[in-house]
Amino acid sequence: MGEKFILSSAERSPIFYPERQSLFRNEKAFFGSRTFSIFTKINFMNKKDLQEVYNNVKPHIHKTPVLHSRLIDDLAECKVYLKCENFQKAGAYKIRGATNAILKLSEKERSRGVVTHSSGNFAQAVSLAAKNLGVPAYIVMPTNAPKIKKSGTISYDGIITECEPTIAARERESSRIQQETGASFLHPSNDIDVIYGQGTACFELLSQETDFDYIICPVGGGGLIAGTCLFANEFSPKTKIIGAEPFEVDDAYRSLKSGKIETNATANTIADGLRTNLGSNNFPIISEHVSHIIRVSEDEIIDAMKLVWERMKIIIEPSSAVAVAAVLRETTFFKGKKVGIIISGGNVDLENLPF
Amino acid sequence: MGEKFILSSAERSPIFYPERQSLFRNEKAFFGSRTFSIFTKINFMNKKDLQEVYNNVKPHIHKTPVLHSRLIDDLAECKVYLKCENFQKAGAYKIRGATNAILKLSEKERSRGVVTHSSGNFAQAVSLAAKNLGVPAYIVMPTNAPKIKKSGTISYDGIITECEPTIAARERESSRIQQETGASFLHPSNDIDVIYGQGTACFELLSQETDFDYIICPVGGGGLIAGTCLFANEFSPKTKIIGAEPFEVDDAYRSLKSGKIETNATANTIADGLRTNLGSNNFPIISEHVSHIIRVSEDEIIDAMKLVWERMKIIIEPSSAVAVAAVLRETTFFKGKKVGIIISGGNVDLENLPF
Repeated sequence: MGEKFILSSAERSPIFYPERQSLFRNEKAFFGSRTFSIFTKINFMNKKDLQEVYNNVKPHIHKTPVLHSRLIDDLAECKVYLKCENFQKAGAYKIRGATNAILKLSEKERSRGVVTHSSGNFAQAVSLAAKNLGVPAYIVMPTNAPKIKKSGTISYDGIITECEPTIAARERESSRIQQETGASFLHPSNDIDVIYGQGTACFELLSQETDFDYIICPVGGGGLIAGTCLFANEFSPKTKIIGAEPFEVDDAYRSLKSGKIETNATANTIADGLRTNLGSNNFPIISEHVSHIIRVSEDEIIDAMKLVWERMKIIIEPSSAVAVAAVLRETTFFKGKKVGIIISGGNVDLENLPF
Repeated sequence: MGEKFILSSAERSPIFYPERQSLFRNEKAFFGSRTFSIFTKINFMNKKDLQEVYNNVKPHIHKTPVLHSRLIDDLAECKVYLKCENFQKAGAYKIRGATNAILKLSEKERSRGVVTHSSGNFAQAVSLAAKNLGVPAYIVMPTNAPKIKKSGTISYDGIITECEPTIAARERESSRIQQETGASFLHPSNDIDVIYGQGTACFELLSQETDFDYIICPVGGGGLIAGTCLFANEFSPKTKIIGAEPFEVDDAYRSLKSGKIETNATANTIADGLRTNLGSNNFPIISEHVSHIIRVSEDEIIDAMKLVWERMKIIIEPSSAVAVAAVLRETTFFKGKKVGIIISGGNVDLENLPF
């Protein structure tokens, strides 16, 4: 495992992001104002280490298909390949990270179990990953979490503790469980082993299709896109990684601009998976490798979701539609390019659809 | 090409359908009353001919995937494999039949074009198949056909003529076009070349998975299940073909019982593709090869559709959900067996969903 320092953005030349100017053509000073000086030390992995992460995770996950559609290519005016993590176990990429993080625990740690707090997909992913590996999973869920997510978690033998629907209550409750049981806490997007696990979706994509000019990831907590960066950087260094997020929760866009982790004042987006903020471990990785963030409107998200459902006949969740909307929005930028999109999942409440 | 006569049911022993009794255990006389005496002469194809049909059609269609789901296996208590024609061009299996029928025309006939009347999927399938083969397609559509189907047909260069929404008007209008243009009429489910073309979905399925005990097909006009029978009979003679239809339009169930083509008094089913009746060419094939028809309720159809959408993350249309509902309904019958299901398509109006 190699060790490497992430440079602060101040040390990088603006020429490092030449395409930003063409994309954000009305924002000449887009990255000129970046003043952050994060200087984070992370143990980075080389090709062999990353391959090993994948080999370890592989027996416990589905190798999901990569789909493309002539119609979407025509609309986007480029070649679009969807890495379909909606077909992943528990309906989302998150089992990859949960599995990798649990595999990294010692036997003693595993015997004590894992704990996380989540109102949704990560709860199910941790429960299923833990079940697959014979590890107890303690899940702190807010009382207002959707019933279907609770029943999913229970079906994977997750041990649920309910708490008030506040971050403070969730953290307090999981600390208590940690102390009482000795369980290891797994953060859904900032745990470095979770991040590496999530990146295996990109690794598979690069083994299924080659020569991508761009890979677009939805950005919520930042774990998926950070993991994607780490794998793409080693296995396809010419591929640029682009984030996609709703205008309504554009914290990652603003964070890259300001150089520090920004938060959202409101969360009025249909893309419920993207309401969270970046974390201290993934933000430096994103800052280093993500060439830019495309923001899309709520209407664009809904239209993209409907388009994929209607034309490709696959269920993608709104958070994934954000990335599809990004490629459809910036047709001039992507014209003629080869673009991969990480479809993060397909967990949708069919009784509460936007169309 | 071999030639063979279909025997009337009166000449067949009841022991020919031993499993009927176990399935329809409360209907001892289920097939006892069959008195029809159809004696149809059709040129049946041998393995080599059928392989040639597939080879001809293959360059113009997608080879669709076969999917399965552990959850659905658990619920159905058997192994279920979905042949996903929802991923077919134009969203349904129908392009297979349309393509084969057009390929069977002489060059002179092709130059005059093809004509059909359809309010939906077959209009789009014929238009796209004809476009692929450089043949004009005249489509008679009722004035009340859904806008999305009309725009789909137009996008595939189909030449639409509108008519009053009655069968008589549709037939009159297509006769007129036939006479004026010399175009060849294609029937969506009773044209024998269309039937053979539809059967190529089953041929592919049998090349993707083997040793099926049963293959379940939704039954509407009868073209898909008849084609399935013809291919399965040659390439997997031990596999039994079962039809699935809604209780609300159980004309095929009643037709097999009475020995003549029955019609439906009403069409109150969500499975809009299954409202039509069997035809003179496909009925004898179905009578010969289909071991039984399973009927399902509207609630069962909606539940099955929701289950597949939620758990498999693929869009299937209500007509396809009928076949999934059938395997979920008759768990005792299918217990431990290997079952293929032809998912006919994924064309759904997202703005008019049942949940």
